[in-house]
Amino acid sequence: MSESVEMSLAEAYDLSLGCLLANGCDGENARAVTETMIAAERDGAASHGLFRLPGYVAALRSGKVDGGAAPTVNRLAPGVVQVDGHGGFAPLALERGRAPLVEATREQGIAALSLIRIHHFAALWVEIEALCEAGLAALACTAYMPAMAPAGGREALYGTNPMAFGWPRRNGPPVVFDQASAAMARGEVMIAAREGHELPPGVGLNPDGQATTDPNEVLKGVMLPFGGYKGSSIAMMVELLAAGLVGERFSFEAAQHDNKDGGPPRGGEFILALDPARFGDAGWMDHCEGFFEKMLSIEGVRLPGSRRHANRDKMAAGAIKLPAQLHEKIQELAGK
Amino acid sequence: MSESVEMSLAEAYDLSLGCLLANGCDGENARAVTETMIAAERDGAASHGLFRLPGYVAALRSGKVDGGAAPTVNRLAPGVVQVDGHGGFAPLALERGRAPLVEATREQGIAALSLIRIHHFAALWVEIEALCEAGLAALACTAYMPAMAPAGGREALYGTNPMAFGWPRRNGPPVVFDQASAAMARGEVMIAAREGHELPPGVGLNPDGQATTDPNEVLKGVMLPFGGYKGSSIAMMVELLAAGLVGERFSFEAAQHDNKDGGPPRGGEFILALDPARFGDAGWMDHCEGFFEKMLSIEGVRLPGSRRHANRDKMAAGAIKLPAQLHEKIQELAGK
Repeated sequence: MSESVEMSLAEAYDLSLGCLLANGCDGENARAVTETMIAAERDGAASHGLFRLPGYVAALRSGKVDGGAAPTVNRLAPGVVQVDGHGGFAPLALERGRAPLVEATREQGIAALSLIRIHHFAALWVEIEALCEAGLAALACTAYMPAMAPAGGREALYGTNPMAFGWPRRNGPPVVFDQASAAMARGEVMIAAREGHELPPGVGLNPDGQATTDPNEVLKGVMLPFGGYKGSSIAMMVELLAAGLVGERFSFEAAQHDNKDGGPPRGGEFILALDPARFGDAGWMDHCEGFFEKMLSIEGVRLPGSRRHANRDKMAAGAIKLPAQLHEKIQELAGK
Repeated sequence: MSESVEMSLAEAYDLSLGCLLANGCDGENARAVTETMIAAERDGAASHGLFRLPGYVAALRSGKVDGGAAPTVNRLAPGVVQVDGHGGFAPLALERGRAPLVEATREQGIAALSLIRIHHFAALWVEIEALCEAGLAALACTAYMPAMAPAGGREALYGTNPMAFGWPRRNGPPVVFDQASAAMARGEVMIAAREGHELPPGVGLNPDGQATTDPNEVLKGVMLPFGGYKGSSIAMMVELLAAGLVGERFSFEAAQHDNKDGGPPRGGEFILALDPARFGDAGWMDHCEGFFEKMLSIEGVRLPGSRRHANRDKMAAGAIKLPAQLHEKIQELAGK
């Protein structure tokens, strides 16, 4: 049950790439999707790593996702860049939107990237980090399938609806948080179910609307927002930005159209980018570095994202441990 | 102790206006500040109503705030409007920035309003509603004085750092949430202290860093973010947007400079506005109305802001009840 297969990141990359190519992805899409999963493995974020590969493959095999989709970029307004993913996976669409978004943001001070007709199945910090590395601050959010009840209700309406935000640093990696609007990310609940762990209280309700700590019951029932009605408001905002604003499906609509193959549904994503250099304070970087120093001076406080970056440093010369069952499944999907 | 004075909104308006004029506000500032407090009274939001007037007056009397400040508007970039409040209260600065922000947003699709050198002491839904009434979606946030420990810490660093978000509706008032990043708004803790109510658990720590439900202990100690580390991340984002980005003081810096007169410290505010009509989906309004209908179809679920709007409807022909002690204090401050 706890058996695992050790491999280098390069081996994991090849494993993923081969599997996606064998299932209908073209080279560009297979590379972009693989890079996103490998970034998660590198940072110790297993729930967004190769754990997602069977879902990607399921979506290719069912024909829901076009593995050869070529995303197109369209400037809708001076501050609005839209990428139409044409029914492909999100990573290549995000890649194609990045340079136009950075350019628009430097020019306008603030800009939005609207992504439509994509299938998003990954962590959001990947796209946020790339923007921060260009010196910008950024926020991203995406809706998903209904999994979470709005405050006061017992029926799923919102996806786990992650929101991520990042800020560039002078030296070293940006400060990035990436958090589900649910009390726990669905991926973590899935991992708890797979590994037989109990959940902390407050994560979700069973199919009868009663509180439970059994991950399998929560996966069949409904999850709860973090922090009660305040987290519920954040989840609503994510729906409005990632679906209402960009013109894509709300979580409840995604579920109505999805073929339930286990892969990501069609949806949208909203990304906001800000160029601090265009807001009038030439000393913004020093000012913010002082703030981060102040945060770190408080006992017990860490910068969001620091654990991932510590994992990344450790991983540089190390190996990942893939659960043996997942490794076998991927080899099978790759036709090996 | 629970004695109160009934008065119409018009009478409350005159009471506030006279008091501010008697304490060094010019007509424009007294009107703008009064309108903001009266809007809160009208909506049954006592913690942001005339309850704040003694704090405004204290800041005028100590000379911290300039009651005759004339805010100036500056377009920093195509998508960035800055209002310099020149050390005055926020309401007039917000008013002056509104039309330029709406214009920039319609032109660019997305725009930011950066407010600096203001003293903000009010609810954020006031400025959000005004933007939604112009057909825009909007987000606002502001930092304040350190009152809340970051996740993991026991020392105040963040203000209660409210964030508000609103979305326009076809008919009727917009959907708006306005929530502190703290488990409870500081104004509510102050009211609980004044009225002798206990707090729910999880709101804060006493001066020794221990959990307590005594509002007086929490006011002397430190508040906690809503939803643990996720609410803490939101509070950090608010600091970075409302201080780091706009070039104003972080909460911890505001405290270092404030004269502790009980009035609002100098700080900044960040407002983001989005024009859904520029994001490529002509049917966005119908699409979002369908989402709100879906929300309301779930038993127990309300739209954020609906309680305020219900209060507003009731208040149209009614009277507010001002605590007798507050009424007396205001009359005294007005020199009556």
